[in-house]
Parts: sequence; C-alpha cells; structure tokens
Amino acid sequence: MAVLVVGSVAFDTIETPSGIAERCLGGAATHFALAASYFTDVRVIAVVGEDFTAEHEAILTRRGIDTRGIEHTAGKSFFWSGSYLRNLNEAQTLNTELNVFQSFTPKIPAEYQDSEYLFLANIDPVLQADVHRKMPKVKLVCGDTMNYWINDHRDNLVRVLEGLDGLLINDTEAKLLAKDPNLVRAAEKILTMGPKSLVVKHGEYGATAFFGSHLFSSQNGKVSLPFRAPALPLAEVVDPTGAGDSFAGGFFGYLASQKDLTPAVFKKAMFYGGVMGSFAVERFGTERLQQLDPKEIDERFALFRELSHLD
Amino acid sequence: MAVLVVGSVAFDTIETPSGIAERCLGGAATHFALAASYFTDVRVIAVVGEDFTAEHEAILTRRGIDTRGIEHTAGKSFFWSGSYLRNLNEAQTLNTELNVFQSFTPKIPAEYQDSEYLFLANIDPVLQADVHRKMPKVKLVCGDTMNYWINDHRDNLVRVLEGLDGLLINDTEAKLLAKDPNLVRAAEKILTMGPKSLVVKHGEYGATAFFGSHLFSSQNGKVSLPFRAPALPLAEVVDPTGAGDSFAGGFFGYLASQKDLTPAVFKKAMFYGGVMGSFAVERFGTERLQQLDPKEIDERFALFRELSHLD
Repeated sequence: MAVLVVGSVAFDTIETPSGIAERCLGGAATHFALAASYFTDVRVIAVVGEDFTAEHEAILTRRGIDTRGIEHTAGKSFFWSGSYLRNLNEAQTLNTELNVFQSFTPKIPAEYQDSEYLFLANIDPVLQADVHRKMPKVKLVCGDTMNYWINDHRDNLVRVLEGLDGLLINDTEAKLLAKDPNLVRAAEKILTMGPKSLVVKHGEYGATAFFGSHLFSSQNGKVSLPFRAPALPLAEVVDPTGAGDSFAGGFFGYLASQKDLTPAVFKKAMFYGGVMGSFAVERFGTERLQQLDPKEIDERFALFRELSHLD
Repeated sequence: MAVLVVGSVAFDTIETPSGIAERCLGGAATHFALAASYFTDVRVIAVVGEDFTAEHEAILTRRGIDTRGIEHTAGKSFFWSGSYLRNLNEAQTLNTELNVFQSFTPKIPAEYQDSEYLFLANIDPVLQADVHRKMPKVKLVCGDTMNYWINDHRDNLVRVLEGLDGLLINDTEAKLLAKDPNLVRAAEKILTMGPKSLVVKHGEYGATAFFGSHLFSSQNGKVSLPFRAPALPLAEVVDPTGAGDSFAGGFFGYLASQKDLTPAVFKKAMFYGGVMGSFAVERFGTERLQQLDPKEIDERFALFRELSHLD
C-alpha cells in the first residue's frame, strides 16, 4: 500500500567525530522516504528550491519514490547545519535557513489521493493538520514532531495529535509534551491527548511503544502492555542525523506492507524501525539508505532478533 | 550452589520524590544477597557496627541468608545518605561515613570455603582481590565497581578484572574504565583487560552483555553477539538505591542455580537481573526484596519476556 509522507527535503552540512559532510541531501521526508522505500511504494510532498537538481531527485526516484508531490520553487532549499563534536547523541545546531520552506503550502497531486498510509513528518502542525484534512480516506496516519512545536505551538500540535493512530517522538519530547519526567506516566498522558499509540525512541537504547485502547480492531478495548524493541550496539556512529526519521520510515513502511494492523505486525515494525535507523547512522546523510540490498535488511533483522530473544 | 558475596552492609538515609527513608538497611551486599536468595543459598562477608541489631540480621536470615561471615565490631556501621530530588537516575551523595568499613579485613569462615560462586560487590579492589585469592576453588566469579575505584585506584582494580568471569557496571563506569565514549568499543577494550564477559547496566533502558571468547566452554573460542535485556517501564520509581545490586543478585543467583553456564542460561540470568531490579525500586531500601513471593518473580519474568519478544 502506498505511503504518503509530508515533510522537509533539505540540505545538511554535518560535522561529527568521523568528519564533515557538506550540503548532503537530507530532511525528515528524505530519510523517511528512502527507509520506507524498501518496504512499500512511497510518495513525497515537500518543497525545494533551485539548488535541488535532477541529480538530487534521482536519489529518490532510483528507489522508486514518487516525487511528483515535490514542489519546485524559486529560491533556495531548506538548509541546516549542525555539529555532533560535543555529543554524538545530540546535535548542536549551527545554522538553520528555512528558505523556500517559509511559505510552504502543501499541495496534494490528484495521483496521491488514493494513498492509504499518511506520515506527517516533523513540520509546522498547521501544515500537518492541513494535509491530514485533505486526505480523509487514509487508513492509518502517524506523525512526528519536535521540541519547538511542543513548546511554542502546543495548541496547534494538540489538534494534530487528536487524529493520529501513532505518534513517534523521542524521550525528551515525550516528557516535554506530557510535562512529566516519568516515561510511563508521560505516555499515559499523551495517549489521553488522542494518539492511539505512542512510540518513544531512545536512540542507542531502542524504542518503546505504548498502546491506547482503540488501535487494534481485534482487541475489544483491551489495553496491551508496552513493547520494547532494541537498538543495535554499534562500534561507530558516523552520523546520527536522520536516525529517527529512518526509524519512522522502516516502521511505517513495514506497517503499510502488511494486510492487517495486529500487535504482532506492530512489534515487527518496531524492529524494522530499529534496523533502518541502524543503517542510517553508518554513513553521512542518506548515503547508506540509498543503496541497501534487501538481503542486508533481512540479515540485520535476524541480528536484532538474536540480540534480544531468549530462545 | 552457594553464592558468596563480599561487600557493604550499611545504613542509608534516602530522599526521593516519593518521600524520605531514615537509616534503612542497605549496602551493596544486602541488596545483592536478598535478590539472590530467591534463587540459591547465599553467604555474606561484611562488617557491621553496634548499630546493626538482631532485628537487622533477621532481615537477612529470614530469607535463609547465611550471616556467619558478617563481622560485628565496635563502632558504627557504614552510613550513606543521598538525594534523588534533582534527578531520579543519579543520586546526589549528601554524606558518607565509612565507620567500621575503614579498617575492614574480610575473614572467610571455614564453612564458606566450599562456595562455588563468588560475587565481589563494590568495595576497595584490594579487598576484592584478597577475597578472590582466599577462594581459589570457586567455579565462577563476577564483580562490580564504581567511578571512585576506576579513577583513583585503577591499578588495583585492573588486577581484579584479570580474574573475573563477569564484570557488572553501568554505562558511565564502562566508558570511564575504557576511556572511550562508544559503548561497543568500550566493551571491547574492557574484555581485553581480563573479564570473560561484561554486563553494562543502562538503568531504565535495561542492560547489554558483551562476551569474550572463553566464557562458554562449548563455544570453542567463537565470540558471540552482544545480548540486550529490557527493563520494565515503571510509572513510579520510589527509590532507585540498590537497583544495580539487585540486578546483580538476580543475575548471579540465577546463574548459580543452574547446572551449566550456557549462552541461554546467561541470557535468562540477564532477564532475572532486570526482574529483581524492577522490584527493588518499587519501595524504599530493601523493603520490596524482603518479602517477594516466588510466584511474583515468575509473573514478572513472563512480563519481561512479553515486553520484548516478537512471537
């Protein structure tokens, strides 16, 4: 089933202990789309400037990603630069230039209207809500957000949360959104705000899913236990940028590739999220995600399984 | 098989968001022994002062723990007070009084000589080495340590590490010991220092085991993958004091209860470590560990399994 993602397509300049990458193709929608493309058809809604060339577009189309929803406009693409020299777990933002993103109004091509799976990557919640409203027939919608929207655009964000089947955020964001330093209580509070499930990403420690009572049709309102998926311990993290978006792409792409949303499918999706996140950080930018062999994904999934299974 | 633990038996005054507990029975050996007592026979080597009464001793003997190795001496027992008001994940030490611990020389009762499992809880590595030397016939020896010994007594500590089958420490300690901020590389370096395995405790995110090449007799030198065990997401952590020691007690007690040390047994032991750690933090001090029903342990083990298993 086709996944539609709306979010940023950007250029990133990234400094890590492994080196520097200048103006590599990045943005949440890019990482998400590449990761999801190994599981299902992917369509992208974004805006880019004149610096986004045919060569950049080919990075997406080579993976079969439908780029007809990427609007080309005068000006420069969204640009971000950050450094992980101080702390590999948290980027220090050096520069952010919104550029063409500043006046972005998502337009949905007619060909995208039959998309059954919608992912609202980290952008202004007003735009997230707008896209969701324009896609009333989607079967499943998940989304991401960040500290800035939680702190300064909470009311708009809360309206988006009400309609989500799943919210994917990190520990800090979950605790900030719920205003509670305990993860379990924070998750309970967030689930009362609307999302039917919450996936909290813990970086190198994996991710935890919390479930509301209406996510799985077969469950008759029974709230299930949380679920924890591991992350792969890696001897070198070249570039953590986009790890969370790649997790989301693997997670949501796998969900979209399955006929029914069951607890077992959701759990496997969490593992595939970890798998795609672990590939993403092995090279700068999206380099590793551009050229994976499906066999490598299978092998790493098996590794994740062995990493945490008793039997 | 009997487990012998050497470490501190102390009194703790603890302040957490849930309240204050004054002078409750604590110390690494106490938490360890209580947790391990649900799996196997436990013997303790420690020193206490006149403030350690028959009532305190009964907390241990009621669980069948052999306390003949606890030396009673003139003066006051080791005392620690700490606060978790600022950060539930890291104690702020308010006061430490070594008292009778200052001149502690471990003495091993003749009745303890046949102990097959030895755990060197967090004390001066000179004392850890001394006890290990006096117990040449042990089948398996694991140990713990802390920042203070890593920073200021490294040479003595390194001599202890050489003889360990397993070292159990937390993330910060592992990175400090290896002088490497990456967990995997830190683990590789620590394994070259002697321990045949390393268990890194991640607090609320579980624990990861790394294996050297000589731990499992059946493996013919093949180094196995790391293994990750989850922690239980808890809505309230009343008191984190002793969680790591309780993990070690559950882990090592389970190992000692099994005939052979196989990869499968080691992995289950990691889960039992998490189980006992999760109980420990539910009440102040050792209160929860004093009165568990074996059925509760089985049920929580099943919960841990469900929390992270795909099938």
